[in-house]
Amino acid sequence: VVRALARLFTQGEQVLLGPGDDAAVVAVPDGRVVVSTDLHVDTRHFRRDWASALDIGHKVAAANLSDLNAMGGTATALTVGLAAPADTPAAWALDLARGIAEECALVGASVVGGDLTSSDQVMVSVTALGGVAGDPVRRSGARPGDVVAIAGRQGWAAGGLAVLARGFRSPRALVEASQRPEPPYAAGPQAVAAGATAMIDVSDGLLADIGHVAVASGVAVDVATAGFEIAEPLQAVGAALGADPMRFVLAGGDDHALVATFPADVTLPAGWTRIGVVLAGEGVTVDGSAYDGPTGHTHF
Amino acid sequence: VVRALARLFTQGEQVLLGPGDDAAVVAVPDGRVVVSTDLHVDTRHFRRDWASALDIGHKVAAANLSDLNAMGGTATALTVGLAAPADTPAAWALDLARGIAEECALVGASVVGGDLTSSDQVMVSVTALGGVAGDPVRRSGARPGDVVAIAGRQGWAAGGLAVLARGFRSPRALVEASQRPEPPYAAGPQAVAAGATAMIDVSDGLLADIGHVAVASGVAVDVATAGFEIAEPLQAVGAALGADPMRFVLAGGDDHALVATFPADVTLPAGWTRIGVVLAGEGVTVDGSAYDGPTGHTHF
Repeated sequence: VVRALARLFTQGEQVLLGPGDDAAVVAVPDGRVVVSTDLHVDTRHFRRDWASALDIGHKVAAANLSDLNAMGGTATALTVGLAAPADTPAAWALDLARGIAEECALVGASVVGGDLTSSDQVMVSVTALGGVAGDPVRRSGARPGDVVAIAGRQGWAAGGLAVLARGFRSPRALVEASQRPEPPYAAGPQAVAAGATAMIDVSDGLLADIGHVAVASGVAVDVATAGFEIAEPLQAVGAALGADPMRFVLAGGDDHALVATFPADVTLPAGWTRIGVVLAGEGVTVDGSAYDGPTGHTHF
Repeated sequence: VVRALARLFTQGEQVLLGPGDDAAVVAVPDGRVVVSTDLHVDTRHFRRDWASALDIGHKVAAANLSDLNAMGGTATALTVGLAAPADTPAAWALDLARGIAEECALVGASVVGGDLTSSDQVMVSVTALGGVAGDPVRRSGARPGDVVAIAGRQGWAAGGLAVLARGFRSPRALVEASQRPEPPYAAGPQAVAAGATAMIDVSDGLLADIGHVAVASGVAVDVATAGFEIAEPLQAVGAALGADPMRFVLAGGDDHALVATFPADVTLPAGWTRIGVVLAGEGVTVDGSAYDGPTGHTHF
């Protein structure tokens, strides 16, 4: 299985030494490496009965590639650890690996190493390495007066999970968004080029993650709901479930949209939409008021 | 807990951006990063009833730091993922982190990022980043005529596990070796400087790991048992259990000793001991004959 896995992973020219030795070696042109790690646990971060191994592979890779996107960077290499019960079909592991490799190919990253071991519960650990052209964009740089903007779909995965949790399989677009996110990988480097002052990817929930930026920057943020266009499938789900679809937008995570702050005079890059403003103070408000709904979910 | 964990991790000057953002940034002076990842699963790679959280922290960090040692490199940064049941005491997680931090301090590495999530079974994922002064030493460079040498304790952890498995707690030195390995961190860079042609760290078992070098290099290796001095506590355990202590040496893993091959005319660095020779052919023999005992253990 290990050999079959290694064959799945195409090695880019940035890989000086790929899988098969005690460690891999990756070229890092500018002398800085950006690194992020995530754990994904069966039943908590994915459900094998709700998504194929291929989709889960895409999803776990996307989460880490998105972390580098949120720094304004691009991943060049991933390491992957898979812990799984000994009776897990090899085909499941190979499909997982194929999904990871396909997602990596979207940004030109290679899987350069990994580990495979047995456990009671399926767990996948992913670590992404990469670089940033320019200064990495932190969470802490937002200043009062900055524009708040978003890139990428938002609320789709949450809408899809709401559908699945009720036993439905449509709208397909939302179900598929919950199974396989489509992070806006071009948007992070675009934001660096446009002078972003702070950035984060939405994984805990939009308001929760904007709250992380507000705390790190020592500022307040007001989100304007008029900035969001509610996509048709979200409207359909809201109607079917009797829920305000804006709730999926404001509290949803797992689409890996990017939220960034920019100087007030910014010309936002294509794909970015203004959704709010940075203010002096603390906390996150919606349309000028405290928000009384859920702001996201916790991973513990 | 996450904030308390972050405070435990001292950030070295190689860390350009430490924990707390979407990703960390680490300086990589020569434009190449060496990376390795491992998963450690409760009851499989460690036992919470046999070792303290502090020891387990040392052990899981040592395993990854040793992977970079086996390339001739030195780790500068670690990322750590902890998945644990929600009722795991915070003190256990903090002691684990303290052990990881202490082990990292031995080589000057910093824990720069991580992830914390809930799961049914405790699992720790560790990824080490670092550099090599010179060319990384692979498993595949051994040539017929090369000297085979070892650095570090070998067989101690296996002896300790044999003791623990029978319900004993002594000899303490062996039990402690199984709980907290002491990899020879200086030996990897020494081997690069001395012209090592191939290298591996012993984690599956001495003969099994020498076998990995033999396969990767397309050579045979003959191990000479006369090269090993059996340490006193291993002799004591052998006598107590009625077992040949050489079996612990030949099949033991988890001490993270280094085995390397060198050109025949090498002057071995201090701390390295000659234990065999590389031959044309394939396979691993002991004192010129096939070995009929266990050669290591499997992680799956």
